[in-house]
Amino acid sequence: MAPTDPTAQISTVTYQELADIESEFEDFNVELVRQQAVSERSLYERRAALLRKIAGFWPIALEQAPPEVDQYIQPADAGVLMASLEEIEVTRFEVISGKDNASTLPNGDPRSFSIRFTFAENDVFDDRVLEKRFWYRHAPLKEAKAGDKKATPATDSWSGLVSEPVAIQWKKGKDLTGGLLDLAVKVYKEGEKGNSAADLATKLSKTPVGGMSFFAWFGYVGRRISAEESKTAVAQKREQRAARAAKRAKGEAEAEEESAEDDEDEDDEEEEDYEHEIFAEGDVVALGLAEDFYPNAIKYFRQAQEQETLSDIDFEDAGDDFEDDDDEDEDEEDAPPSKKQRT
Amino acid sequence: MAPTDPTAQISTVTYQELADIESEFEDFNVELVRQQAVSERSLYERRAALLRKIAGFWPIALEQAPPEVDQYIQPADAGVLMASLEEIEVTRFEVISGKDNASTLPNGDPRSFSIRFTFAENDVFDDRVLEKRFWYRHAPLKEAKAGDKKATPATDSWSGLVSEPVAIQWKKGKDLTGGLLDLAVKVYKEGEKGNSAADLATKLSKTPVGGMSFFAWFGYVGRRISAEESKTAVAQKREQRAARAAKRAKGEAEAEEESAEDDEDEDDEEEEDYEHEIFAEGDVVALGLAEDFYPNAIKYFRQAQEQETLSDIDFEDAGDDFEDDDDEDEDEEDAPPSKKQRT
Repeated sequence: MAPTDPTAQISTVTYQELADIESEFEDFNVELVRQQAVSERSLYERRAALLRKIAGFWPIALEQAPPEVDQYIQPADAGVLMASLEEIEVTRFEVISGKDNASTLPNGDPRSFSIRFTFAENDVFDDRVLEKRFWYRHAPLKEAKAGDKKATPATDSWSGLVSEPVAIQWKKGKDLTGGLLDLAVKVYKEGEKGNSAADLATKLSKTPVGGMSFFAWFGYVGRRISAEESKTAVAQKREQRAARAAKRAKGEAEAEEESAEDDEDEDDEEEEDYEHEIFAEGDVVALGLAEDFYPNAIKYFRQAQEQETLSDIDFEDAGDDFEDDDDEDEDEEDAPPSKKQRT
Repeated sequence: MAPTDPTAQISTVTYQELADIESEFEDFNVELVRQQAVSERSLYERRAALLRKIAGFWPIALEQAPPEVDQYIQPADAGVLMASLEEIEVTRFEVISGKDNASTLPNGDPRSFSIRFTFAENDVFDDRVLEKRFWYRHAPLKEAKAGDKKATPATDSWSGLVSEPVAIQWKKGKDLTGGLLDLAVKVYKEGEKGNSAADLATKLSKTPVGGMSFFAWFGYVGRRISAEESKTAVAQKREQRAARAAKRAKGEAEAEEESAEDDEDEDDEEEEDYEHEIFAEGDVVALGLAEDFYPNAIKYFRQAQEQETLSDIDFEDAGDDFEDDDDEDEDEEDAPPSKKQRT
């Protein structure tokens, strides 16, 4: 029996039920990631101890970084990474380090993480450690306007990773971002109305597309959502969900609810991005590092070794190595980690 | 301090340690997937009950299936799916249904799953249920030949999904695979030496690349590895790992171990694929369905609705809808589920 008119069957109530069961799956998965983050800690510590025995492990692995990371590593970036990157460490800090007032969830959100790069002394910057934190936050819910028939249900608001710019102590004349990162840090501190904001806008407009240094990623902000706003949004969403569940349990209709119009919601999202972003895809790069590159680092290291025997590696040519790996990306798609494990 | 000669630092022992800690991560993740499979069961049951209230949910969601699935859905396939697909269900059967003698792991492997399609009566085949099972198996370890300096360490052997062909009761003249699936079932039963095998080879050589029906996927076999072979391989790998760990604990060198040469290993893998495979990427499609499409089905359904208001859907044109969705795939990459959740 073919369905003849599906629209007739999908009521507003059913839409809300779909959204609510998705939220339950979401909550379930967050708890799972929390357990995982806590219990895999000791494994990662043992791995780190082992990797420290292999000189150049992280720069070599990084040659085969997944495309969403690799595409932003310019030859000059690759030079300093190859010559001095000693370690990368990802920490789900909200669930690891105990009570964190900046967390949206009472026991910490396992989707928040920090990425910490440790460097040897080098001739580009003075920092030995560069650490960037990402918080998983929920945007404040919008009030439905009276008479607005097409208002987005409040349950559909945005959530994702936000961050703060991290300054780098460049050596004289060595700033790989050409001053952009310094300006981004200033604008973030001073607010978006000052002179630095205008300077940054001008500078950004002159930066060629695709020419941005990987180190500009440390300037990523994302949406400006405070911890408090995020906590309030989550509490409101939970209340609304509970109220709907209670109504459903009593069998009441929800005729007053508006129907879901995701398109409008997405339009709104575009408008709310941080205006002085110097690295628009900063959250995508962060996820690529934290959820793919870091857990699969040994796999990427092995791939880099398969590509070229180690004896051929010339650290002077590191820049080229970072660029020439389109083929390997394809290989990787043929054999995703979950499909073919080596045990 | 830049590393000068990394090769000097990477001993055979260190390679083995890398492989062994990867195995520990693997074991850890398998346990996590097991817990997840067991505890999310009731959520999926509630979701299924809800989705049954929405006529056409699964065919509509399937319009937005991830590319690794979508690319194999031909217009004729889309026609029967649109007109009669009622439900899709994925079950991690080894960990759900208790004792399973065909399982590699004592408590069942959570990476094994079945995909069950339920259909309304239709004019293409008589079956109301088509169910395909995938077992996660480990290939037998190869003995290192005496004097073979470059032998692959046994720990690097292949593991992945294998299956058995599932017959479809086509209505007269309606076989969407043009007889290929029937032949594949026959060859699997009779062995690869018979007449059917020769017929299948001839037929396969005449099938245009990219023209294969999605329903040929039911014929996928993968490697022919028995449950016993898989159990033995896992037991051997664990023994070897334990022996190495014991040696390391005693501080003994392992000079007798061969060094890892993955390239050779991968060459071997190519040779061992099932020779009469009618759907080479069957495991990739299965993973796309089980690990992406099925858990995110509501998201895909919503995307399909955003693409076209439901009132415009003409079920006669279903074939076209399945083809014209390149744009949406790109959108999806911009917003992976883990980055942007709606709660």
